[in-house]
Amino acid sequence: MSPPVAPKTLHSLTRPRGFSVASATCGLKPSGKPDLAIIAADAACPSAGVFTRNKVKGEPVKVAIKHLRSTGGVLRAVVVNSGCANVATGEQGKRDAVAMCAAVADGLGCATREVLPCSTGVIGRHLEMDKLLPGIAAAVPRLARGKQADDDAARAILTTDLAPKAATRTVMLGKKRITLGGVCKGSGMIAPNLATMLAFITTDAAVSPDMLKPMLKQATAASFNRVTVDTDTSTSDSVIVMASGAAGNRAVTKPGKPYDALLDALTDLCRDLSYQLVSDGEGASKVFRVNVSGARSVRDADKVGRSVAESPLVKTAVHGADPNWGRLAMAVGKSGAAVKPEALSITVGGVCVFKQGMPTKLNAAQQRRLAKAMAGREVQFGIDLGRGDAGCEWLGCDLSREYIRINADYTT
Amino acid sequence: MSPPVAPKTLHSLTRPRGFSVASATCGLKPSGKPDLAIIAADAACPSAGVFTRNKVKGEPVKVAIKHLRSTGGVLRAVVVNSGCANVATGEQGKRDAVAMCAAVADGLGCATREVLPCSTGVIGRHLEMDKLLPGIAAAVPRLARGKQADDDAARAILTTDLAPKAATRTVMLGKKRITLGGVCKGSGMIAPNLATMLAFITTDAAVSPDMLKPMLKQATAASFNRVTVDTDTSTSDSVIVMASGAAGNRAVTKPGKPYDALLDALTDLCRDLSYQLVSDGEGASKVFRVNVSGARSVRDADKVGRSVAESPLVKTAVHGADPNWGRLAMAVGKSGAAVKPEALSITVGGVCVFKQGMPTKLNAAQQRRLAKAMAGREVQFGIDLGRGDAGCEWLGCDLSREYIRINADYTT
Repeated sequence: MSPPVAPKTLHSLTRPRGFSVASATCGLKPSGKPDLAIIAADAACPSAGVFTRNKVKGEPVKVAIKHLRSTGGVLRAVVVNSGCANVATGEQGKRDAVAMCAAVADGLGCATREVLPCSTGVIGRHLEMDKLLPGIAAAVPRLARGKQADDDAARAILTTDLAPKAATRTVMLGKKRITLGGVCKGSGMIAPNLATMLAFITTDAAVSPDMLKPMLKQATAASFNRVTVDTDTSTSDSVIVMASGAAGNRAVTKPGKPYDALLDALTDLCRDLSYQLVSDGEGASKVFRVNVSGARSVRDADKVGRSVAESPLVKTAVHGADPNWGRLAMAVGKSGAAVKPEALSITVGGVCVFKQGMPTKLNAAQQRRLAKAMAGREVQFGIDLGRGDAGCEWLGCDLSREYIRINADYTT
Repeated sequence: MSPPVAPKTLHSLTRPRGFSVASATCGLKPSGKPDLAIIAADAACPSAGVFTRNKVKGEPVKVAIKHLRSTGGVLRAVVVNSGCANVATGEQGKRDAVAMCAAVADGLGCATREVLPCSTGVIGRHLEMDKLLPGIAAAVPRLARGKQADDDAARAILTTDLAPKAATRTVMLGKKRITLGGVCKGSGMIAPNLATMLAFITTDAAVSPDMLKPMLKQATAASFNRVTVDTDTSTSDSVIVMASGAAGNRAVTKPGKPYDALLDALTDLCRDLSYQLVSDGEGASKVFRVNVSGARSVRDADKVGRSVAESPLVKTAVHGADPNWGRLAMAVGKSGAAVKPEALSITVGGVCVFKQGMPTKLNAAQQRRLAKAMAGREVQFGIDLGRGDAGCEWLGCDLSREYIRINADYTT
């Protein structure tokens, strides 16, 4: 399977009916690049968010959680700025995050709490509100639909990403075609201080807030939460979904087949975006998939997937194209999952290199296949624990000198 | 505090009375360097071991655990080879590990189970017993005491370490002077497959096996377990202590002051060895200390210390001499410990850079102190959680291009 690549300009956020976007350059970035995006629904609609588990949370994250709680999961818009994360900024930071929302609400004629704020960029500095607020006021009247508007928004939320990231999916619910669109940003934790993973998803599905929330949680657990660039967790990570209901499907208000179908599409979209995140990981030249099977529980499978995907020795082996089963076995063993070495088998690019606790003898053809598998842009590892039926897939990227350059050679 | 540096030849393992050592070159390493060490007590004596928690364990580790269990914590000797780890070698691997012990037991006239085996080096290959067994037979008659013998042994256990590592401590128990000596090896998980942290400690203290075991566990928890080079855990990590009783002190057979005094000396020795391990970490050019205070529990303090010491972004910031409080705050927040950002304070080289949730404004003199602190070979971070009285210290090393070179550019 070849990695999904985002075309140059992708119709994403406004492909589902009921949404428009606007972006602007307020002057928050030294580079002078676009730094503001607004994603608005035509009317307030069911929405949900999943936020960083880091105990040190940005002020906008705290405000976002509060707004979603107070509306019971209904939003009119999301306002995002890059260039300044508004983290470690105390009471003033909180007031600034609320003021961002109020400016959008003013323009749209909705309640402030129906707007969700997101910020990414430098931390420990206050937002330059004298630049941001006029930018917001000017952007709201320019809310629009279409490829170009979506692409501009996808670019405005970037910090040090090399490429914009966008994806779409469709799914039939009954006779109605549902569309989902999403953009995201993030490539690791970056200089000068922190950077962040942000993802924004729109859909025209009709779905109640109390179903949308668990659905987003499940989709995130199986996608963004199974992706690792450098093990570090930002203070501002956020995934937001808004559902306009414009597709006219019978609203998803309880678990069942329509819920599952929509969840599948959402998960698939999130995986696509996750893949793009890892591919653009800081200094990454290769992506690797860790397919875990035979675990006693999904929890155990996740421990193993994470341990392998995060191991510096596995990451450097991928970088060096070394099919090093020893490092894989080590990473499995240290994961904390229920592992019996004598039941453990490992494949690399489909070639079994370790079977039930012992390295396998490879013939010349197998060794050639192995070398070829490790040399590609995408590497596949299979970890079979031989203990049960649970499994999962994690994505990781290699660890390169470029990562060190990006993260060590910069001085704040 | 300047890092303890091991002198060229240090009287270590045989400085405590009642021990002798021998080393040899059996030919297990392509380099032709020494690859065998035997550490023997004059008579079987109380001993204890702490072993890797990795679920994938080397065969020698399994045999070692079995021998210690079957003697109730009494050993006559430890036999160590480098060049081959005897990991993922199945039943034959186990037989080979036992045969190593039997060869030493033969020479010393003791039971096989009174000998403990350790192996480090390449994994997935069988020990070359035709080289190892004659080497052991030839080494036993050459068991000796003194600086040179100790230094030879410290070197024979090395794999890719740049320097031998040894330390000693003394402590008074009543009117008796107790001596402790130790050597260790390890510099990360290394090419071609796995390498290992091994530490061997001797003491002439009289102490019962049932006290020695918890004592070693406690000392290890506060030293070797608070050190991280690359988060990866070898399949063969082992720390072994033997206590000859030759100092003639009243035997430590229960908790109390003598126990605590001996524990302190042992912990201090282990910390010295740990520091040498981190200093010699793969590609390491700098060591950093993470002093955690104000935690609600030692468990929480450990989570924070580990999270900071393992964070790739903190490690690269140390490499780049960047006093990046944002990365430190991020690593604290993601640790899983009970953290309140508004109670969190951070110092770098004694300069407070983050106070109760907000960055501090530094004057020019403080900024110079900060720059100087980050430029040194050893960097000090202070993390005060402001939540309680518990604390701990972790040691880490920087992440450099050299780590990538060592671990990526090698192909098995």
